[in-house]
Amino acid sequence: MAARLKIRKLVVIGVGLIGGSFALALKRARAVQRVVGVGRTSRNLAAARGLKVIDEASRDPARAVRDADLVLLATPVGQMPAVMTAIAPHLPAYAVVTDAGSTKGDVISAARRFMGAHLSRFVPGHPVAGTEKSGAEAAFPDLFQGKNVILTPQRETAAPAASLVKRAWEACGARVTRLTAEQHDAVLAAVSHLPHVVAYALVNMLARRHNAAQLFGLSAGGLRDTVRIAGSSPEMWADICVANREALLAALEDYENELERTRAAIESADAAELRRLFAGARNARGKWLVKKP
Amino acid sequence: MAARLKIRKLVVIGVGLIGGSFALALKRARAVQRVVGVGRTSRNLAAARGLKVIDEASRDPARAVRDADLVLLATPVGQMPAVMTAIAPHLPAYAVVTDAGSTKGDVISAARRFMGAHLSRFVPGHPVAGTEKSGAEAAFPDLFQGKNVILTPQRETAAPAASLVKRAWEACGARVTRLTAEQHDAVLAAVSHLPHVVAYALVNMLARRHNAAQLFGLSAGGLRDTVRIAGSSPEMWADICVANREALLAALEDYENELERTRAAIESADAAELRRLFAGARNARGKWLVKKP
Repeated sequence: MAARLKIRKLVVIGVGLIGGSFALALKRARAVQRVVGVGRTSRNLAAARGLKVIDEASRDPARAVRDADLVLLATPVGQMPAVMTAIAPHLPAYAVVTDAGSTKGDVISAARRFMGAHLSRFVPGHPVAGTEKSGAEAAFPDLFQGKNVILTPQRETAAPAASLVKRAWEACGARVTRLTAEQHDAVLAAVSHLPHVVAYALVNMLARRHNAAQLFGLSAGGLRDTVRIAGSSPEMWADICVANREALLAALEDYENELERTRAAIESADAAELRRLFAGARNARGKWLVKKP
Repeated sequence: MAARLKIRKLVVIGVGLIGGSFALALKRARAVQRVVGVGRTSRNLAAARGLKVIDEASRDPARAVRDADLVLLATPVGQMPAVMTAIAPHLPAYAVVTDAGSTKGDVISAARRFMGAHLSRFVPGHPVAGTEKSGAEAAFPDLFQGKNVILTPQRETAAPAASLVKRAWEACGARVTRLTAEQHDAVLAAVSHLPHVVAYALVNMLARRHNAAQLFGLSAGGLRDTVRIAGSSPEMWADICVANREALLAALEDYENELERTRAAIESADAAELRRLFAGARNARGKWLVKKP
């Protein structure tokens, strides 16, 4: 068995739902001694300290990482190049860096460009978990329990670095899977990025109608669940859509073809074809998505 | 104050989630003495009796309605014409008939054609509530608590009949709203029928991919909530899509335009426009859909 995981100093850059929950989960697992949170707004950092999500707050990433064992980059993906540029010259030789970005191709490109000699200890990762809430106040230690974390180590990635990150996520209760960055981005475009686009568009279509207040007032739980993720951070999701746009556009095209298939059956009042389509979807959901009791 | 509601005999035709929950809610409110359930399969009727959702079971709607005070038609909308044809010659003069169909234009057309002299005591209605489950075993008395019920009485509808149906739904804990049938069908196409089409299409698009098992296995709560309603009855929803196809096609067109707007912003990597679109959706959801604590 591996020795017990012990991280002396964890630096979380971007203390939001993901970064904050990572810190809380590792603290609860007694796998970390000290957590330093780095952020842009002192209000959120103060909240994170007050809630004991972090032990210290810093607005200076370069200074914060100087004696870090593990650094988690948990900012929106659009900010990763700037963060990497800021920290790379100041990382100790032993530090392992990982990220929680929802897209991997672009984060890896940035790492190749900006992480310099630390590239071999950069382990690209993505915890496939979250809620529609954001900020340190939304963080909770059970967020990753039973959830998937995908790591996409590159050929340069040192095995001990990948192993440390894997063990840290396992200490948070997550199930760790390895994929190539391309596989990751295609999978996530389909199962996460597209559903967000779908939910945002559905709300906007309703909100544009002149009787929007009446529409929402007469809606029920079906709509509410379908668009729950339209409460997600616009900044983060705009970044993700741009960063992963090729895979997302491919998924969107497949989806629009599927909608067209449904529309054709509605137009021709083909109830048998609609039953076939809907039953196929219900069966797939039942087989793959419904949790067994 | 109105006298206490007292229905001697309620006949529920179609003892599923909606019909069964209506019976249970009225029983709990002590507003009904006897409930007769009518259905096509003896298995479901036996379950309904075993669960005390109904007091008696019948497979013969004509016989069941002979001394009914109130009849609820809770079958899929496609079966309503046949049910109306079967019961109209056997209804007593005092019986009030209502329905729980998710579309109103087509149910009203059927009533005009098949309800004969009983048209003035037919009150078209729609409880905007449900879950993705179906059958008598899914019924529970709180289903309508705080939910909207839309009644669409016609110019022929007798006021006391409309009043009885309104009071029955209020006894179930529902909030009753009146709309024209056209208003109802346009509203529901947008807030309910379209979201179902969206959810079914999203699951089908994923299920058609060669790596469907991997995709669903790596998905998270966002997808699960977005497609929860893809677990709904294919038979019922095929009927609804055909019955309300004009309003649904109009809603689908608006939605596809909204998707195109999003796609254009993704294609041109316009993060500012995406932030604007997503923030608009998040604000609309926050204003209209998020329950105040």
